[in-house]
Amino acid sequence: MHMNTYEMCWLEYKRMQEGKRGYYSNWGRVIVDLEGPDAPDSYIEELRHFISNSLGIEPQVSSTETSKVGYILICRLEKLKEIVREATEWEKFINDEGFIIKNIKDNTRNILLVTGKTFASLVYGVSELIKLMRLGKEIEGLDLVSNPKTRFRMINHWDNLDGSIERGYAGGSIFFKDYRVIYSERIRDYARLLSSIGINGIVLNNTNVRKKALEMIEPHYLKELARIAETFKSYGIKLFIGINFASPIYLGRLETADPLDKRVKAWWKRKVEEIYSFIPDFGGFIVKADSEFAPGPHIYGRTHTEGANMLAEALAPFNGYVIWRTFVYNCMQDWRDTKTDRAKAAYDNFKPLDGLFEDNVILQIKYGPMDFQVREPVSPLFGALEKTNQIIELQITQEYTGQQIHLCYLGTLWKEILDFDTHIKGEESTVKRIVDGSLFSRKNNGFAGISNIGDDPNWTGHNLAQINLWTFGRLAWNPDEGIEDIVDEWIRLTFGDDKKVIENIKYMLLKSHRIYEKYTTPLGLGWMVNPGYHYSPSPEGYEYSHWGTYHRADLKAIGVDRTSRGTGYTTQYHPYWQEIFDDIHKCPEDLLLFFHRIPYKFTLKSGKTLIQYIYDSHFEGVEEAETLREKWLELREKIDEGRFNAVLERLNRQIEHAKEWRDVINTYFYRRTGIPDEKGRKIYP
Amino acid sequence: MHMNTYEMCWLEYKRMQEGKRGYYSNWGRVIVDLEGPDAPDSYIEELRHFISNSLGIEPQVSSTETSKVGYILICRLEKLKEIVREATEWEKFINDEGFIIKNIKDNTRNILLVTGKTFASLVYGVSELIKLMRLGKEIEGLDLVSNPKTRFRMINHWDNLDGSIERGYAGGSIFFKDYRVIYSERIRDYARLLSSIGINGIVLNNTNVRKKALEMIEPHYLKELARIAETFKSYGIKLFIGINFASPIYLGRLETADPLDKRVKAWWKRKVEEIYSFIPDFGGFIVKADSEFAPGPHIYGRTHTEGANMLAEALAPFNGYVIWRTFVYNCMQDWRDTKTDRAKAAYDNFKPLDGLFEDNVILQIKYGPMDFQVREPVSPLFGALEKTNQIIELQITQEYTGQQIHLCYLGTLWKEILDFDTHIKGEESTVKRIVDGSLFSRKNNGFAGISNIGDDPNWTGHNLAQINLWTFGRLAWNPDEGIEDIVDEWIRLTFGDDKKVIENIKYMLLKSHRIYEKYTTPLGLGWMVNPGYHYSPSPEGYEYSHWGTYHRADLKAIGVDRTSRGTGYTTQYHPYWQEIFDDIHKCPEDLLLFFHRIPYKFTLKSGKTLIQYIYDSHFEGVEEAETLREKWLELREKIDEGRFNAVLERLNRQIEHAKEWRDVINTYFYRRTGIPDEKGRKIYP
Repeated sequence: MHMNTYEMCWLEYKRMQEGKRGYYSNWGRVIVDLEGPDAPDSYIEELRHFISNSLGIEPQVSSTETSKVGYILICRLEKLKEIVREATEWEKFINDEGFIIKNIKDNTRNILLVTGKTFASLVYGVSELIKLMRLGKEIEGLDLVSNPKTRFRMINHWDNLDGSIERGYAGGSIFFKDYRVIYSERIRDYARLLSSIGINGIVLNNTNVRKKALEMIEPHYLKELARIAETFKSYGIKLFIGINFASPIYLGRLETADPLDKRVKAWWKRKVEEIYSFIPDFGGFIVKADSEFAPGPHIYGRTHTEGANMLAEALAPFNGYVIWRTFVYNCMQDWRDTKTDRAKAAYDNFKPLDGLFEDNVILQIKYGPMDFQVREPVSPLFGALEKTNQIIELQITQEYTGQQIHLCYLGTLWKEILDFDTHIKGEESTVKRIVDGSLFSRKNNGFAGISNIGDDPNWTGHNLAQINLWTFGRLAWNPDEGIEDIVDEWIRLTFGDDKKVIENIKYMLLKSHRIYEKYTTPLGLGWMVNPGYHYSPSPEGYEYSHWGTYHRADLKAIGVDRTSRGTGYTTQYHPYWQEIFDDIHKCPEDLLLFFHRIPYKFTLKSGKTLIQYIYDSHFEGVEEAETLREKWLELREKIDEGRFNAVLERLNRQIEHAKEWRDVINTYFYRRTGIPDEKGRKIYP
Repeated sequence: MHMNTYEMCWLEYKRMQEGKRGYYSNWGRVIVDLEGPDAPDSYIEELRHFISNSLGIEPQVSSTETSKVGYILICRLEKLKEIVREATEWEKFINDEGFIIKNIKDNTRNILLVTGKTFASLVYGVSELIKLMRLGKEIEGLDLVSNPKTRFRMINHWDNLDGSIERGYAGGSIFFKDYRVIYSERIRDYARLLSSIGINGIVLNNTNVRKKALEMIEPHYLKELARIAETFKSYGIKLFIGINFASPIYLGRLETADPLDKRVKAWWKRKVEEIYSFIPDFGGFIVKADSEFAPGPHIYGRTHTEGANMLAEALAPFNGYVIWRTFVYNCMQDWRDTKTDRAKAAYDNFKPLDGLFEDNVILQIKYGPMDFQVREPVSPLFGALEKTNQIIELQITQEYTGQQIHLCYLGTLWKEILDFDTHIKGEESTVKRIVDGSLFSRKNNGFAGISNIGDDPNWTGHNLAQINLWTFGRLAWNPDEGIEDIVDEWIRLTFGDDKKVIENIKYMLLKSHRIYEKYTTPLGLGWMVNPGYHYSPSPEGYEYSHWGTYHRADLKAIGVDRTSRGTGYTTQYHPYWQEIFDDIHKCPEDLLLFFHRIPYKFTLKSGKTLIQYIYDSHFEGVEEAETLREKWLELREKIDEGRFNAVLERLNRQIEHAKEWRDVINTYFYRRTGIPDEKGRKIYP
């Protein structure tokens, strides 16, 4: 491996303490790899790199069994069966991507075994083994089986061909520059990072496929993409491509993209064949259609089903998939129109199509009904689609949540979303059981996350934002994993085992989303940001726009009535939730202004008026942001200077910007209402 | 001349009616041009083109006196003296750019003479002569003397090297594309348009000189610019270049741009010499310094005077000028800061420097204290600078005034500005007497206008927006000219002599600014636009920004108190105006919310409350916009279909957008106040 000009996040393999080194060297001196030269070089290289750096020894790699007592044995189950008899019984414990790590110890051998059914499973198994050692775990008696609970664990990049990234806050693209595909060793390192958290699919290009990016599926780009796909493949990651539904017109010079037109079907069929000729392992298409000016089947009077199934038919012979985004709504709404409710759009568009999609079509559903606000209810589409493949779309990149200048750990929010019980089939009908396919027995299920990385030396702009990527992968592998465990491991792997470091960073991360919410837009209000770039407060920035995002504040009240007496949005939920959301006294306080229009003087459960709650929230939010910095400052001697100062600089900016949020929002409401803060704190007139 | 793919605005030389043709042919058959081959080919070509197209004859051009009875004689005064004895006495009637058109008729000759001191004056004289004929004026006995009242009549382009135009609403640049200078015949035609309205200076590049545009003064660009400069020169127009004050650092690799640093001075001196080696007729620099992130002398603790004078010194040997913009203010203001008032900035920055600038430095002053809003008071800098050269900056391009989608004739506004009596030296101390140099006896005076043209076939997007360019030139030549005459001539030259056409378009033009004001932001309020692109209403779009633009509306009142009891802005005016502006009962109603903070229930002179005035203004504005369309529709058979439909399409968009303005602004105030419209018209809640 080479010297990097960038960090390796949670994969920095530092030299271990002597005791540990000796212990793990019992196995690490020899690697027996029973796979032949057809195997990818990824996992053995990773292991060798780890052993060399962290254990300080150069392991001997052998392709046959050894007479040594202690060693690491790596191979797929089918090879293993030849030498370990009981392995024939293990097949049933693991799925295609699952792995087993097992210590087999008898009089003559002390084997540390990593196995699974596929090369990908070996990549995951080796990653896990390395992690266990770095976390100082016991090896003797180890008997670990791990299966990903989900089928698709996708990263969506919104990288543009010019090298910019839509909603990117960590520099430019590592894949594109000046309308060319770029290849660098960093792509391999990125694949290492992704595979270490179980990611198995990736889209490189922006979901808004415009102009030159349409050519992504033309030979001159496919040729370049093939090389990247090859790298990713050796880490178990398949390449997908975002396409424009009107490609047959722009690339094929047809006069239509009508999915029922024979020429269109034929064009896509040939196009798919061509793609697979360049990328044999190609994953499939991701499509944003009939959404925010992107063309789609509606233009031709066809349904999403007809559009998606036509593509699915072309991909089916190659086991390719169509991932179809449900982010569809009227983005040219008239603000004067109080009947239309953007929140209802995804359900209204896709619920009627349940059961009509081909087996290799998967709907990609944003977690909430709007667009990645700091707080939204869970989309009512989860639970509404019983006979349709679906994956949940989360936004790892911090678009509305502080753009990686603010610390905003998203794991706590995601956990709440995944644990949300839709009640659709009685209790325990949680979102995580929908997206892992178990509730409705759907094989093609999973997670998609919008990438938060760029070419910044630390990948994510804010060093601590690395954990959002880490957490996404971990939850996608196992949505039941505890968030504190996920955080704890990340801190140890990234910053080491110091107790204070762990304690303080854990505190910062677990509190941060709630703090951000408090000083920005609490109570499910959302959208009070500058239009377009979505940073900094603008209380009425989206109020008269065409985007369907209104709070309709006047001198007495604020919020949209989305109950069954209002826009009817709540009726898209199971009656259990409809009743709760409909009732201003039962509705979770977090979401009060998402579901209800409320007078400023209304008294909340806490006994505070709405206006006082807003003021308190903003004052407290800033105070709590300041505690984040205090917690960090306590770590000054415990963290390397570079990262310490980089994070401190972001925290300083966060606090300044939190004050801006506090003052703008408080002033906005004070000017609206004329009601002063009960506690007499400073609100600018 | 050639076939154009674009219109020629007021220079379309259509065939005249037979009677007129015959009359003007008495002189038009022969052109005697006594200038030799050193003369530019511009004015004779123009005349020939006109005679050929409009009179339908090919004129004979002779370089010596002719025995013909009737002809047009063109030459400079110095040549003329040799053959027309009384011409020696005419010298005193004209300045360097002035011209004489005179009919000399005796027994043997019937000469139509065009003369002046310079080639430029001949260009202007010929333009005037053509105009007279096209307007059907009498030639016999003609004895016309015309002198421009101002010295500098400049067009400022804000064209970017990539071909885009900052604040351009009529396509791309005709000068730049893909970071290269482009030369086309259109540039000559543009020079013809500009010279026909007396323009004598031009800047091609954006006043924000960033990145690649810094290289505009490097040989590779100068070489290309030289060709354009040569074309402009033959029409009496000098090329200026916008520069970045930090050029010595970026281009000269010095570590400073400190104007008092010897190396910096030497660098600029050599740079100026280099520029003149490429463009011998170079006009000079235009500089935006210490403004909106542009670097300037303040960075080095130096004054604007020191910065400008340093450049002036380098330019002086070549008679070059420094045009220094006074658009300087703190663009990183904290909205919480109610003491700082952006309106005061230009005066505060430049008043103390009066008398300290070199003779070849000219300050370019925006007409108002803010930034080209639909209505602002006249900048108090006019009158405050008695010993400083100054030109007024007007914005021909319709940035905040409807972006050439809305009809908004600016001539009426400009006329009000020019006629504003500062009272600085008693009555008749009008702005026009300041900018023509007469009030303070300043030789270097004049006008600068931000261009409204691009590569659209009609140059200005909206066909009727052509008149804004026309009017700018006419007022710059003679600020005393009546606005109705200016409008009348433009309509005749552009659309012909039909009475109804003249009547209706005149109505539309003269009413349009006031109408636009009524449905957007009346009473001097301003800034209720979407940040950045400045189109469409956003009532609080600039409310919490760093740009120093706040109305601070709350539930009771709106506006900033800029009186001597408030920010003190009014104290920058002569006491005459201070007293008027300070007094809510005397302040012109148009500017009421610019100067005062006023409760919504306050009763205006008209007897209406402020809130009712706002509602009425917006309802009336839309109704009046609809009358603009009615007036246009009456002309359907009288105007060619292409232009008729193009303008109609814009008027339709204008009306739709006027309704958007009406509804957003009315709703905004209704939500603020809860006060309904007295007349019960529809305001959305």
